[in-house]
Amino acid sequence: MSNEKQAVKEITPQAEDFSKWYLDVIKKADLMSYSPVRGCIVFKPDGYEIWENCQRELDRRFKETGHRNAYFPLFIPESFFQKEKEHVEGFNPELPWVTEAGGEKLEERLAIRPTSETMIGHMYAEWINSYRDLPLLINQWANVVRWEKRTLPFLRTSEFLWQEGHTAHEDEADARRETLQMLDVYTDFVENVLAIPVIKGQKTPSEKFAGAVDTYSIEAMMKDGKAVQAGTSHYMGTNFAVAFDIKYLNRENKHEFAHTTSWGVSTRLIGALIMVHGDDRGLVMPPKVAPTQVIMIPIGPPKTREQVVGRIDELFAELKKAGVRVRVDDRDQSPGWKFNEHEMRGVPIRVELGPRDMEAGQVVLVSRVTGEKKTVAQADFVSEVQALLEQIHTDMYEKAKTFLHEHITPIDTLDEFRTLLENKGGFGLAGWCGSAACEEHVKEQTKGTSRNIPFEPAVRKETCFVCGEAAKHTVVWGRSY
Amino acid sequence: MSNEKQAVKEITPQAEDFSKWYLDVIKKADLMSYSPVRGCIVFKPDGYEIWENCQRELDRRFKETGHRNAYFPLFIPESFFQKEKEHVEGFNPELPWVTEAGGEKLEERLAIRPTSETMIGHMYAEWINSYRDLPLLINQWANVVRWEKRTLPFLRTSEFLWQEGHTAHEDEADARRETLQMLDVYTDFVENVLAIPVIKGQKTPSEKFAGAVDTYSIEAMMKDGKAVQAGTSHYMGTNFAVAFDIKYLNRENKHEFAHTTSWGVSTRLIGALIMVHGDDRGLVMPPKVAPTQVIMIPIGPPKTREQVVGRIDELFAELKKAGVRVRVDDRDQSPGWKFNEHEMRGVPIRVELGPRDMEAGQVVLVSRVTGEKKTVAQADFVSEVQALLEQIHTDMYEKAKTFLHEHITPIDTLDEFRTLLENKGGFGLAGWCGSAACEEHVKEQTKGTSRNIPFEPAVRKETCFVCGEAAKHTVVWGRSY
Repeated sequence: MSNEKQAVKEITPQAEDFSKWYLDVIKKADLMSYSPVRGCIVFKPDGYEIWENCQRELDRRFKETGHRNAYFPLFIPESFFQKEKEHVEGFNPELPWVTEAGGEKLEERLAIRPTSETMIGHMYAEWINSYRDLPLLINQWANVVRWEKRTLPFLRTSEFLWQEGHTAHEDEADARRETLQMLDVYTDFVENVLAIPVIKGQKTPSEKFAGAVDTYSIEAMMKDGKAVQAGTSHYMGTNFAVAFDIKYLNRENKHEFAHTTSWGVSTRLIGALIMVHGDDRGLVMPPKVAPTQVIMIPIGPPKTREQVVGRIDELFAELKKAGVRVRVDDRDQSPGWKFNEHEMRGVPIRVELGPRDMEAGQVVLVSRVTGEKKTVAQADFVSEVQALLEQIHTDMYEKAKTFLHEHITPIDTLDEFRTLLENKGGFGLAGWCGSAACEEHVKEQTKGTSRNIPFEPAVRKETCFVCGEAAKHTVVWGRSY
Repeated sequence: MSNEKQAVKEITPQAEDFSKWYLDVIKKADLMSYSPVRGCIVFKPDGYEIWENCQRELDRRFKETGHRNAYFPLFIPESFFQKEKEHVEGFNPELPWVTEAGGEKLEERLAIRPTSETMIGHMYAEWINSYRDLPLLINQWANVVRWEKRTLPFLRTSEFLWQEGHTAHEDEADARRETLQMLDVYTDFVENVLAIPVIKGQKTPSEKFAGAVDTYSIEAMMKDGKAVQAGTSHYMGTNFAVAFDIKYLNRENKHEFAHTTSWGVSTRLIGALIMVHGDDRGLVMPPKVAPTQVIMIPIGPPKTREQVVGRIDELFAELKKAGVRVRVDDRDQSPGWKFNEHEMRGVPIRVELGPRDMEAGQVVLVSRVTGEKKTVAQADFVSEVQALLEQIHTDMYEKAKTFLHEHITPIDTLDEFRTLLENKGGFGLAGWCGSAACEEHVKEQTKGTSRNIPFEPAVRKETCFVCGEAAKHTVVWGRSY
């Protein structure tokens, strides 16, 4: 893309209009383009590379926990959706339908998959016969489509990229163990790779996946106080096994239904990491998924330029060899212009090298997240960069964690919650009696919803903040993307 | 999958019915399942992992040649196909159409992408303004759909997985350089990773990609003598640039159309490597993409079992640490049963360890391709395995190359070609005058087609084998998948 086009322009301040800030930033940092198809975006190279880096980290974790990848068809026959009642009700309104193909009208309409429980359920019924076939631990990397009414780049697009794990087990205990294990895998990934602290917990019945017995989620808080569901893991019980006849001969030689799970994260994580870490100067990329981890910029007068760039190339080669994703910006623009440009793109470390640094055998590292400059010996360059990348990850995680904790407010009444949302924002922590009616009332009154029932709430509440009855659970409430 | 289900059964001999052999093998080796959607298969873990291994090798080569990945929408508006006349004629008959979505009839039908020149052309017109934006070098990993009438697992499926590179350049020379560079990348990959020798050349006009100026291909020969087009690279000229208005301001500040290319390989390569290397005992997997490179099998009486398995576990850990894809088969079945099973699955190396090997501090390696046994010291285990994997790759490549060369027959008349196809099989090398009529005649008479005009034909022919006029090119002819 031309440098001219990408010159840093004004970014709307977050405090002025957070949504506009978000749209400004993702366009200016060249992560995406709108496509001519409603609600579908193009993932440009820097946007897509964030996803590739996420994939590599996740895929390793899936394989380490015994899963293998497979690939199932994009098309799902209409009749498949009819087999699980809650599932069809949940997804039917969002399906695109192929009705013609190869010049002919199809006998049965084909949906574009919004998720693959039905297709995979059908195949598992064919593959699973005996307890020896279990557990069956499979993951799929795929595109899925949900024809959403309101879309927002990365966070909610008609077509998106994700992974969906689908497993089948002998009994409830093993399936539940898997469900929570994958929630832990997601937590580890989102916290330790994306530097996003999350709240782990269980979804209320009205918010669970269509067809699941129990849904668990990790919830993250954006800088505007709204929630993003960063990952979900579902225990399906035997719902899909009954619907698709996934039966196996157990150790006592009797037929039993398998217990299944599914779990997924998607490209919405890209939106989440932007909204959690970004600031008024632009993106702040978590080092472990940043497409460019280090940008090297020569400074000083033109006459020293050749010598400086020569040394930069040597240092570049050292970093590259060490596996760091590094680039050199030796374009003609001024250093100041470049500083702004790469700050806007969220590059974790800027390396400056000028003639005086050359003489002193040193180099300057600047952290995107704190802005701190550190002068280090060129001899220690690689190890200093690696240490600073780790430090930046920790700084970002701690900063986000402080923000999250400062924005979880214990509340006792619906009025308090409304006031919270209209002023400080963030999540409310409140008791809930367990009734869907009270949940619905919160939604109507505040546009906030239950995010999840956290495993470890900061405080426990004794009464429902809506009806005042005894609380069954302490729940995190908030508005969400 | 249960062991019982996967027990080695009869595989139809290749000489008896090659198609049946192929279908037997891919089912028994558990690479795929038929899906309930016409012409779509499920890539089971062992099948999908071949593709993952291909992806890793290809992706590295794409990035080393300066390309970056991106992702474009699955849906393509109908009007986009109308913009390039040859393109729409080529692909229209195979398109599936989404006509309804989110409960409403769409105003414009959306095709499921059969390839993405049109969508990417539209986006490139938006992204490219100046010569500084060029070359634009992008690749996409994606699923695509072509509603084929006759399908065959891996080789021709309605939905398949592939990569499609799309690049834009300042001028013809640079675009042509890219087109041939990517053909070389494919050649390197297919020969040095999949161990499949190929014939590099240019497609005749009637066989080129719909919308291309020139199409180049690498053609491989299956064991039944039929061809598989293993990869293609297209120089589009300014056809798509004109259709989608991809213009840039050149170095003289004038508007010019960009020159574009596209190039792709797909999961049909999985079918090709099976048909090139497999034998009557089953698959023979090229070591560099084999899901399992080494299978370790304990032998000897039950009383020594524990000790043997203990030592196998140690050797397993050494191999694993060295990055070898290794598994241990310590199930209850007999060694003989296991030997057959893993031969059928095409595992390149079988490792046998029994009590006598334990005493002698040795271990037995068996090559899947030659069947040769080699006894090596346990101390040299890792390096011996690595060397044998390399050797097996070379053995497979040389074997396939000999077969290919033995089955390319210079021919002078159509009768000779017909006789060739009906008896020995393979490719005919013959002169061609350059007329589409002669090509069409060959097809009608023999069901063979021009595969490509090889860059380096073994012999050059002076007259057209159809009409007897002076030959413009020496062409490879054959039947193909």
